[in-house]
Amino acid sequence: MIVGGEPMRPLRPAAEGDALWVIDQRALPHRLQWQRLATPAAVDRAIREMWVRGAPLIGAVAAYGLALQMRLEPSDAALEATAAMLRRARPTAVNLAWALDRLRARLQASRPSHRAALAWAEAGAIAEDDVAANAAIGRHGLPLLQAIAARRPGPVRVLTHCNAGWLATVDWGTATAPLYLAHAAGLPLQVWVDETRPRNQGASLTAWELAQAGLPHTLIADNAGGHLMQRGQVDLVIVGCDRVTARGDVCNKIGTYLKALAAHDCGVPFYVAMPLSTLDLGVRDGLAEIPIEERSGRELTHVGGRNAQGEVVEVQIAPDGTPAANPAFDVTPARLVSGLITEHGLVAADEASLASLAARAARADR
Amino acid sequence: MIVGGEPMRPLRPAAEGDALWVIDQRALPHRLQWQRLATPAAVDRAIREMWVRGAPLIGAVAAYGLALQMRLEPSDAALEATAAMLRRARPTAVNLAWALDRLRARLQASRPSHRAALAWAEAGAIAEDDVAANAAIGRHGLPLLQAIAARRPGPVRVLTHCNAGWLATVDWGTATAPLYLAHAAGLPLQVWVDETRPRNQGASLTAWELAQAGLPHTLIADNAGGHLMQRGQVDLVIVGCDRVTARGDVCNKIGTYLKALAAHDCGVPFYVAMPLSTLDLGVRDGLAEIPIEERSGRELTHVGGRNAQGEVVEVQIAPDGTPAANPAFDVTPARLVSGLITEHGLVAADEASLASLAARAARADR
Repeated sequence: MIVGGEPMRPLRPAAEGDALWVIDQRALPHRLQWQRLATPAAVDRAIREMWVRGAPLIGAVAAYGLALQMRLEPSDAALEATAAMLRRARPTAVNLAWALDRLRARLQASRPSHRAALAWAEAGAIAEDDVAANAAIGRHGLPLLQAIAARRPGPVRVLTHCNAGWLATVDWGTATAPLYLAHAAGLPLQVWVDETRPRNQGASLTAWELAQAGLPHTLIADNAGGHLMQRGQVDLVIVGCDRVTARGDVCNKIGTYLKALAAHDCGVPFYVAMPLSTLDLGVRDGLAEIPIEERSGRELTHVGGRNAQGEVVEVQIAPDGTPAANPAFDVTPARLVSGLITEHGLVAADEASLASLAARAARADR
Repeated sequence: MIVGGEPMRPLRPAAEGDALWVIDQRALPHRLQWQRLATPAAVDRAIREMWVRGAPLIGAVAAYGLALQMRLEPSDAALEATAAMLRRARPTAVNLAWALDRLRARLQASRPSHRAALAWAEAGAIAEDDVAANAAIGRHGLPLLQAIAARRPGPVRVLTHCNAGWLATVDWGTATAPLYLAHAAGLPLQVWVDETRPRNQGASLTAWELAQAGLPHTLIADNAGGHLMQRGQVDLVIVGCDRVTARGDVCNKIGTYLKALAAHDCGVPFYVAMPLSTLDLGVRDGLAEIPIEERSGRELTHVGGRNAQGEVVEVQIAPDGTPAANPAFDVTPARLVSGLITEHGLVAADEASLASLAARAARADR
């Protein structure tokens, strides 16, 4: 996407192939700060501590991490150990495992001496495939917005949760891709941005992205979405996802389930933008089978932001010693999902449709 | 309730009858700071700017505001003008109008020269009636908790939203009254405290209250409640309310509706603690008829807290110029409410039950 007139992605492979530059998303929206990651350990830390986040992005970044290992030491043992380390960096999004598995399979089939160059190229291919998938999600989601615009005057009002924008992917975003295409096509939009506690990815990342693109948006508390839907102020919900099961249960940022319930109760369509890399046919029951990351309670008791002096600092909002629980994701049952917007088109959130989608995608790959 | 070994209420009438002291709740949990309010204008400001908040508390404080006016100037004109001003301080909670109407009716029937003393005494009676109502709500809610404790070992896990604790009332709280009674009776409890964005009344007030009482609690993001209910980690939801309609629709802090939906979806009982002063038989359809206060977007874009130097400051979390919408309340339809816990006992959230409750209460008053 374009930031300050320049094309930008959240990751930039060094031309020398010896490092990956990433936007340190912890500093946004206050500073656009790049970090150079030159070792698998640095990549592991950047994923774990959420310098980079978003299911598709952490997949691509992890692939570069494994590629950096191949440059340092391309043995089978190093390949397996590094892939295992990176896979553990975060537990919920399946894209991390998906990207590492894809790269690992290519590398296992090649001689160690060839692995460094091959891995770098394949990490690049994983990144470009993500860009293409998201652009296709945009094209397939666009008609949903156009249909609403055709029904009545005024902007199409879309609610989104967390950040499933270009910062969460290699480019375009998943949930935002249809929005960016619609905006470019001149369709009037109004985006409700859930602030997305406790890490405020909506307030700090999605609001920043949409402002850069000149896309009209309004920040709301996570608590407000149901109220807006009750009052007929939301035409459509589009969210991203971290893992979708074989039967269509959607694991996404904590709070997504509550918005899906409200959408269902208010008759508002609830769509999930899902690149195929986020589909995990190995699990069926999302609630029972997807591991939910539990993060530090400090994310709740303390909030980071910019003070009056322009410094980025943390303030404590809860009493000293307050215990806090911080599950980072929840699971929205398939029954609450109106449809999945994939790079292969709209798909129903049910077992048969997803199996057929996977089969079609496998044929297209051959 | 007891704070640091001392009995405490959020308001304290001056012995001289010339002022009302209130806890400035904006400073909690970082400082326990009292403010002296000596004029109706000061009371109006304290309600408007949420130095005091909580439906029952603002009713009692407004009554003292009108009483202070009677000391300054007890004419009919001053009575009407001050009552009208205070009534407009906040639009959603009906207790404000209820308390002013009760006091105004008494004063209208008396000679101006008698009004100052009468008003002060009646404001005190309104406050004491609130304490008694909340204690009764506690007694009527307690069996709900005891029944869960009797069914299985371990603590009874209650989720609450916002602050419907003693800080929101004159004493005991509404939603918390059963919890404090249960805790005193030795029933093991675990309270999930929604942080309650954007003003964080859960994180700053409810967590503080429960900690003072030694009542086990865990702070969570507003986004997390649905997830916990899905996983069977919530036995019961109890919230307060700002206005309940004749047919049982419940207006309460923004986000309550989302929790009610999740409770309904997960089979978790959803109770509302309602003193009769919060029932508004003059409205039926909560969604159509209750005015919802829209507060400043700054409550979303900026967060107050304590910095590393121990100073209470504000930090900005969203990009400069981010538009924000901030509805402060939402309406939970009666169909999602398991029951209302009132000072007269448990009542179903439906028109017939509420009419019968009101009739019973009117007979008891006679």
